[in-house]
Amino acid sequence: MLYTESLSRLIRLFQKMPGVGQKSAQRMALYVLQIPRPEAEQLAQAIGELKDKTRYCSLCMNITEIDPCPICVNPARDPGTICVVEDPKGLLAIEKTKSYKVHYHVLMGNISPLDNIGPDEIRTKELLARVEQGGINEVIVATSPTIEGETTAMYISKLIKPTWVKVTRIACGLPMGGDLEFADEVTISKALSGRLGI
Amino acid sequence: MLYTESLSRLIRLFQKMPGVGQKSAQRMALYVLQIPRPEAEQLAQAIGELKDKTRYCSLCMNITEIDPCPICVNPARDPGTICVVEDPKGLLAIEKTKSYKVHYHVLMGNISPLDNIGPDEIRTKELLARVEQGGINEVIVATSPTIEGETTAMYISKLIKPTWVKVTRIACGLPMGGDLEFADEVTISKALSGRLGI
Repeated sequence: MLYTESLSRLIRLFQKMPGVGQKSAQRMALYVLQIPRPEAEQLAQAIGELKDKTRYCSLCMNITEIDPCPICVNPARDPGTICVVEDPKGLLAIEKTKSYKVHYHVLMGNISPLDNIGPDEIRTKELLARVEQGGINEVIVATSPTIEGETTAMYISKLIKPTWVKVTRIACGLPMGGDLEFADEVTISKALSGRLGI
Repeated sequence: MLYTESLSRLIRLFQKMPGVGQKSAQRMALYVLQIPRPEAEQLAQAIGELKDKTRYCSLCMNITEIDPCPICVNPARDPGTICVVEDPKGLLAIEKTKSYKVHYHVLMGNISPLDNIGPDEIRTKELLARVEQGGINEVIVATSPTIEGETTAMYISKLIKPTWVKVTRIACGLPMGGDLEFADEVTISKALSGRLGI
C-alpha cells in the first residue's frame, strides 16, 4: 500500500466523477490534503448543502432552489414555446445567448439504446403531458447533434406530432468562425441542406 | 442567476483544484447533484477523514497515517541512500518501479522564483539535517527534469557538497519506446551527453 487508506478512498470517489481519471483524482485528493482544514470543511459542507438545498423543478426538471423554478414562473417569458434540452448544461448554454426568452423542458439524458436508456428513462412522458395541457405553439428540440441527441429529437417529433403542435429542431451547420476546409462531411451536408435564403 | 447558489458555490470550490477548469467543475458538481444522497455523504465524509487521518511523516515528509511512515521504519530498505522527490506523486512513481528500495525525502515543491518559492519554502533544510546526522552515502535527486526541478537539483547539489556525501541526478534521455525523430533537441543532447558504455 503506497497511499494511505483515507487518501485511496477519496481518490476512488473522485474517480467516479465524469471526466476525472486516475491522475486527476490523485491530484485533486492531494490538493485536499494540502489545503487548510477550514477550506476542506467548506468543501465537504458545500457537497452536503447542495444535496439539501438544490432540487429539480417539478415543471421543467431544471435544477432550482425554489419549486417551480424562476424560469417557469417568469411572466416575461413566452409561455407558448418549450425548448427541450438534454440536461441543465444545455439549458445554461441557451440562456447564455440571452436571445430566447422561452420555457424549457430538461430531459435529463438522451435516448441511448447502447446504454439501456429508452424513452421512458428520460422525461419524455412529462413533456407530452405539458404539451397536451394546451397553450403550447412550438416545441424546439435543442438536444445535441450527436447520434443520441438526433435519436431523441426524432422520437420527440413522433411523440408530439399527434397533438398538431409544431416541432422544430435547432439548425446544424458550420460553427461561426469555422473554416469550411476543416469541417467534416456530415456537417457540410447538413449546412447545405439547411441553407436559407439571404 | 442561472445556477442555484449552492451549486455555484460547489462549482467555485471544485474549480480551485489543480487541473479543474470551469466546465469540469460544472460537470463534477452536477454529478454530485445527481448521485444518491448516501454517496454524496460518503464523499463529504471522505474529505473530512482524509484531513483527520493522513499527515506528513516527520522524517521524510511523505504522506502517512502512522508517523514515522512505513517506508522510513522499514529495515529492509537501504538506510544509506536518500532519494529526493518533489512531491508524493514522484515518490509513488519511483516506488512503482519496485527496483529501488531506498529512503525518501519529499521536498513538497520545487524552487521556482517566479512563484516566489525559494529554497526555504521547500524542505531543503530538513534534507541537510538528515544528511548531517551521518550514515548517508548517496543522495539521489529525482526531481522532474523541468526548469524548476533542475534548479532545485542544482541547489541541493551545492547544499550537500560540503558534507562530502555523493549527490547524483536521475538520467535524462529518450523515453523507452520513444522515437528519435519525435524527441526534442534538448532531450537528444541530454541523451548523447549521458551516453553509457554497452
